[in-house]
Amino acid sequence: MNEGGAAAAVADTGGAAPCDLLFTNVRLATMAGGYGEIDDAALALRGGRIAWLGARRDAPRACVEHDCGGAWMTPGLVDCHTHIVHAGNRSDEWEARLNGATYEDIARRGGGILSTVRATRAASDDELLRQSAPRVLALLAEGVTTLEIKSGYGLALEDEARMLRVARRIGDVLPVQVCTTFLGAHALPPEFAGRADDYIDEVCERMLPALAAAGLVDAVDAFCERIGFSHAQTARVLDAARCHGLPVKLHAEQLSDQGGAALVAQYGGLSADHLEYLSPEGVAAMARAGTVAVLLPGAYYFLREQRMPPLDALRRAGVPLAVATDCNPGTSPLTSLLLAMNLACTLWRLTPLEALLGCTAHAARALGRSDIGTLEPGKRADLALWDIARPADLAYAIGARPCRAVVNGGVLRLPQVELAA
Amino acid sequence: MNEGGAAAAVADTGGAAPCDLLFTNVRLATMAGGYGEIDDAALALRGGRIAWLGARRDAPRACVEHDCGGAWMTPGLVDCHTHIVHAGNRSDEWEARLNGATYEDIARRGGGILSTVRATRAASDDELLRQSAPRVLALLAEGVTTLEIKSGYGLALEDEARMLRVARRIGDVLPVQVCTTFLGAHALPPEFAGRADDYIDEVCERMLPALAAAGLVDAVDAFCERIGFSHAQTARVLDAARCHGLPVKLHAEQLSDQGGAALVAQYGGLSADHLEYLSPEGVAAMARAGTVAVLLPGAYYFLREQRMPPLDALRRAGVPLAVATDCNPGTSPLTSLLLAMNLACTLWRLTPLEALLGCTAHAARALGRSDIGTLEPGKRADLALWDIARPADLAYAIGARPCRAVVNGGVLRLPQVELAA
Ligand SMILES: [Zn+2]
Ligand SMILES: [Zn+2]
Repeated sequence: MNEGGAAAAVADTGGAAPCDLLFTNVRLATMAGGYGEIDDAALALRGGRIAWLGARRDAPRACVEHDCGGAWMTPGLVDCHTHIVHAGNRSDEWEARLNGATYEDIARRGGGILSTVRATRAASDDELLRQSAPRVLALLAEGVTTLEIKSGYGLALEDEARMLRVARRIGDVLPVQVCTTFLGAHALPPEFAGRADDYIDEVCERMLPALAAAGLVDAVDAFCERIGFSHAQTARVLDAARCHGLPVKLHAEQLSDQGGAALVAQYGGLSADHLEYLSPEGVAAMARAGTVAVLLPGAYYFLREQRMPPLDALRRAGVPLAVATDCNPGTSPLTSLLLAMNLACTLWRLTPLEALLGCTAHAARALGRSDIGTLEPGKRADLALWDIARPADLAYAIGARPCRAVVNGGVLRLPQVELAA
Repeated sequence: MNEGGAAAAVADTGGAAPCDLLFTNVRLATMAGGYGEIDDAALALRGGRIAWLGARRDAPRACVEHDCGGAWMTPGLVDCHTHIVHAGNRSDEWEARLNGATYEDIARRGGGILSTVRATRAASDDELLRQSAPRVLALLAEGVTTLEIKSGYGLALEDEARMLRVARRIGDVLPVQVCTTFLGAHALPPEFAGRADDYIDEVCERMLPALAAAGLVDAVDAFCERIGFSHAQTARVLDAARCHGLPVKLHAEQLSDQGGAALVAQYGGLSADHLEYLSPEGVAAMARAGTVAVLLPGAYYFLREQRMPPLDALRRAGVPLAVATDCNPGTSPLTSLLLAMNLACTLWRLTPLEALLGCTAHAARALGRSDIGTLEPGKRADLALWDIARPADLAYAIGARPCRAVVNGGVLRLPQVELAA
């Protein structure tokens, strides 16, 4: 960091062990209950965790002190729903549609999700990483410290394994924590055309056991939709996840009401995602189960959908709202979580506070992570420093680059990161 | 630039004077007639201008050669409509509205455009530059090489002069060409409440002559709208501009049909901007006059408008379409021209080609600049290099950071620029 205050050594004057690093002259949005604003604050780290935070005058001793020049600090952002590992993009289809091609034209020339499956299967692991990295770097440049990555473009054991290994590698080679989600039940692979139940057998009895045993799966997801998998097929996937002791989430009620949210809630699901067609029964089931509603306004925007998720009902029921990019080449080629926040506020009238909670505290909850998402003592030191006048600016400014610095597990970095060759 | 091909000295083997710099192994989108694609191309610069372009095998000699590794090159992007110089933002109002405040509540607490006027008047020149620079830097990071900046938050001679001087300073201290536009007739300042005609006297008889004499005005604009200035008042501003030999443009038909586009076309206007309520007569007048239609989808998006500009009629009439950010704190806090392209394609169904022409060739025309906007011999060497698979990716990807390098008047730079202290 080369802004304002330079890091200055502070003498250890004895007593309790000093902290590793103290941020002072900082304004905190702790996201623990509302914005949780603390002006003229300080925050101390020790061992990669938040050791203390409060008024600057009460700050403990630390080995190194960093004057933030009055900048705002929030928890590191959490993108809790992405398909960011894939090869190719689908801008050619998109351009063809804008030039008048019909969906049939696109399908005839082999477009749609299966074109991404073909490209992903054909790419080497290194090529998958090389193509996915710029998308991850765009997120990291705006303060993202934790990222969920789904499989689902392999649709065969070895290709799903490769996607998940590349996802893990991203967490190894870049300063970001990656949570992997097995989404074998994303689409029906061509090898199983007309045999969806057989493919679900494959997912539950062969793919999931092998991938879970390899330690590649942090959670299990499925696409419960008329054009995806049925309620019954989805239930089989969730059963299999339960057998392996894995948490579940679900693509639910995006294009129609399949009762998916209530289904995943029955399994104590971490989240139900999309939810444009969510029913009152689905809302109630999510509230009872503590399932987070993950809102994906990028897909709604890019597909020009008209139907909004039932936000007031979700609010009334006390269901936590998260916001994510849904980064994927077909329906949400979005690699900015700040833009997802703006889309949620502009199109769906979330408040800026709801949007920021949705990318911090509530997104962490959607990943089952109680150690991140707020600024509180004991939490992992994942932080973002911002050049903004107030927290609402993060959702308000469209295309701005307000991130000044990021801390990942106690390690300070600049927003702009490169992938080592 | 530290990507792929390093710059390599090439011996001058005699004959015609060698070029200064040769980009090779590049894919050109010249934007001269469609994308104007040239694969496996080269492009040579001399004296800050494009000296030659064509197939790589035919490339002329140059002092320095740069291998672009197959990257795409387009003209530098042109943002032809911004209010980017201003102090403060209005995220507080925005947040209040999302929390249920009415427009009356906002007005009662002194919100709206006049709050930006107050903040801009109160800021020193240095402070105006300091606050505006991050917005400009965000544009520069994505390949913008020419930027229009309007006054209109001073609304008094000295404050309008300060805004325009700061705009000029931006062109001096940052690698971007700035075109200034005097927009004194943006809103009625509080000093003239109830006396709009008197304020138009002030604009035409005092402000414009002084600012034009000071060399601060490249073009003249006004806000012709029920909540702005009338058709007759606007005509007076355009008359005054004509007296000073200055080109004109107009905020026209954004919220209602005031006949503004036809009016500015009568004056041979460079552009009519917004145009959601443009009439068939307005389209015809613009076509006859060669006036560019500047589309501003950021404001349409941010205000959740429903009425689209009559794009098919504009296309049929052969009116060139430009696309700009309209960067301003009240209705379009947008500092990404790539996002403006995506908004135009997603919300208004522009094709990616139309969007890119709208930010290059047609945007240049909207500024009356025949020396920029396409890759052609003799044009100014304003170029952008991109890590993309095809030109449509620029409009397709939302929140990506694909710009690899930029050339401003022949000088190579990285996308990320900082303002010297
Ligand atoms: Zn998804
Ligand atoms: Zn404007």
